[in-house]
Formats: sequence, C-alpha cells, structure tokens
Amino acid sequence: MREIDHLIQLLARLPGLGPRSARRAALHLVKNADTLITPLARALSETAAAIRVCATCGTIDTTDPCAICGDPERDRAMLCVVEDIADLWALERTGVYAGRYHVLGGRLSALDGIGPEDLNIAGLVARAGDTAVREVILATNLTVDGQTTAHYIIERLADCDVKITKLAHGVPVGGELDYLDDGTLTAALRARRTP
Amino acid sequence: MREIDHLIQLLARLPGLGPRSARRAALHLVKNADTLITPLARALSETAAAIRVCATCGTIDTTDPCAICGDPERDRAMLCVVEDIADLWALERTGVYAGRYHVLGGRLSALDGIGPEDLNIAGLVARAGDTAVREVILATNLTVDGQTTAHYIIERLADCDVKITKLAHGVPVGGELDYLDDGTLTAALRARRTP
Repeated sequence: MREIDHLIQLLARLPGLGPRSARRAALHLVKNADTLITPLARALSETAAAIRVCATCGTIDTTDPCAICGDPERDRAMLCVVEDIADLWALERTGVYAGRYHVLGGRLSALDGIGPEDLNIAGLVARAGDTAVREVILATNLTVDGQTTAHYIIERLADCDVKITKLAHGVPVGGELDYLDDGTLTAALRARRTP
Repeated sequence: MREIDHLIQLLARLPGLGPRSARRAALHLVKNADTLITPLARALSETAAAIRVCATCGTIDTTDPCAICGDPERDRAMLCVVEDIADLWALERTGVYAGRYHVLGGRLSALDGIGPEDLNIAGLVARAGDTAVREVILATNLTVDGQTTAHYIIERLADCDVKITKLAHGVPVGGELDYLDDGTLTAALRARRTP
C-alpha cells in the first residue's frame, strides 16, 4: 500500500481533489492499470519534458514562442492582457479572438504583497511600444485586485500610442436578472445599448 | 498544446474530475512541473508496476497475499465481506476491525446483468469452509442490490459452520434525526437498545 498511499497524497494536491476524491481517483487508477494508469504516467512525463514558458506572452506551451505567438495568422495589432493562463484558455475556447495575448502571471494585491515587479508588466509595456500593436484589451478579472491591476496598466501605458479597451460588463448570457448581484446589474444598466 | 490537451483528456476520465476541473488540474500540474508533475508521473509508474490482486481476498495491493491477508496478527476467525475495495479501505480507516476481508468485486444486479458467477462468491464459500473461520460479517451496502447480495450469500453459506452477522443499521454518529430518511429511522427504532 505504500505506493498507493503515496499516489493518493500526490493526487490530493490537485485542485478540486480532496483526500476522499483522491482515494476514489487512485482506486479507479489501480483498477484500470492498463487503460489509464500507464497512459497517464506517460502523458505526465511527456508533458513535463515538453512544456516551455513562452518568452513573448508568458503562457505555457510545448513550444517557445507558443502556438499563438508563433502563428503568423494571429493579428499583431491586438494584445489581450489576462491575469492567468486559465483566462487565456477560456478566451481561446470562445474562438472569436484572433489577436495575441499577454499573461501577467497574477494580479496586483496589497494584501498578498504582490507589486508590479512581481507581474510581467515591464514585458507588456515593451510589447505595447511595438508600432504594430494598435489596441490593448484589458481582460483582468472583475475583482477589486483585477480592476486595480487594470487601472495600473492604463497608467503605465499612458505614453504608448495604443487604444486601451476593457471587456464589456453586463448580464451573462443565459443569466436571470433575479439571481444577479447589484454590481453586475448596475454595470449592465449603465452600459445599456439600443438593440 | 497537443501534450497538454492529451493530459487533460486523461485527467477528465478520473472520477470526480469533469472537463473544467481536469483543465484546472492540468494547469496546476504544468505550473508545478518540478514539484508535482514529475513525482506524480513516477508514482503512477511505480504503482502500475507494483500493484497485485490478492488471490486470497481480492483486494489490490503491492503484494500477493496483500498486507492484511499476509499479516499473522489479523484474526483468522473473522471474515468481513465487502462489495468493493473502497469499502475495505473505509473499514480499515476506522482501525477497529482486526479480522480479514473478502472483496466480492461488485454486487448482484438483475438490472446490470451481474450474477453470482460475476462476483468472487465461490472463493468466499471456500474460505468460509475453512475451520479457522468462525464469523462472516456481511458489510455489503444498504442498497436493494447490496442487501440482495447479502441474502444470497446467507443462503450459500447455510451449510458452513459459521456465525453470520451484518453491520448494525441506525442513526449515523453526529446525525440529526430531522434529516434522516424514514428507512434509517425505522431501522434505528427496531434495533433500539438499553443505553
């Protein structure tokens, strides 16, 4: 059981898995040794060997520059600023954005002691200075820290000749007004448009 | 991204992880390549190489006979019958049971077409015939199928010279009566005891 217990401990460190679900996952793995445990071990080793941090945008991919930065089809004029790689993945799943990204690697947070020098902001300022870039889309989260980060970036980019935009705030698609918080409803009212 | 996408697909096959949490887990892994992904890959490989099905009780362990069946301190007179390895693990965590186990590998189910020959019942009958065994504790789940399985085993063991017992039914420790189903309350009332 020593090997299995060790496996359970490691699985329990994954987000979304507690001790109980880590045990269930480990049991599922040992019951499906051939079809799951060996392929998963190989996939992890291959991923570990392949991953690179993109020196341009800061995302993790198996190439550097990443698939997006290295794609000549992606619009060089647009730069979308996100806090985390997960946000980049979420935007990519929509399939509607054809520009490039810049991953900050977090958000400014006085509470957690995270300042501008802890984020990839210098890299963003350098990229925004590129004459090819015409628009910087701020897609930081709508939290206090995320918005503080956005304001800070706006100040830092004041001297750059780029248009700065933010994601629209409003009612989520499929959302019911009754269940929405006041802040979202207020934002949706203020940004109202003719249909 | 091919390697990472493949990893996400495999992680999504674990119980308790959907596509969304598999992505979060994969991102957490690639962000912690040295501390998590490589140890996890190694733990999976080592577990895959080490696991054995115990020919005696049917559990999965890294030795055959398993640590419990091979432990001379465990009481040979008691045999606890469980549906699944997860149930064995749950009972072991209590630390109060000093006997041995027998894993059926499922439960009888007319709906799923699982008959006695699909379960490790012949092995149980053989083990119960051992003169060292004095008590068989039926710890199948309190579902219709689990109880059907228990009744079937009672019939099959009719000729064996063993005492057959079942886990007590009643109010869970810490449970509030108001939240309990009628069946559990009925069982608790019928099995009432002097304090």
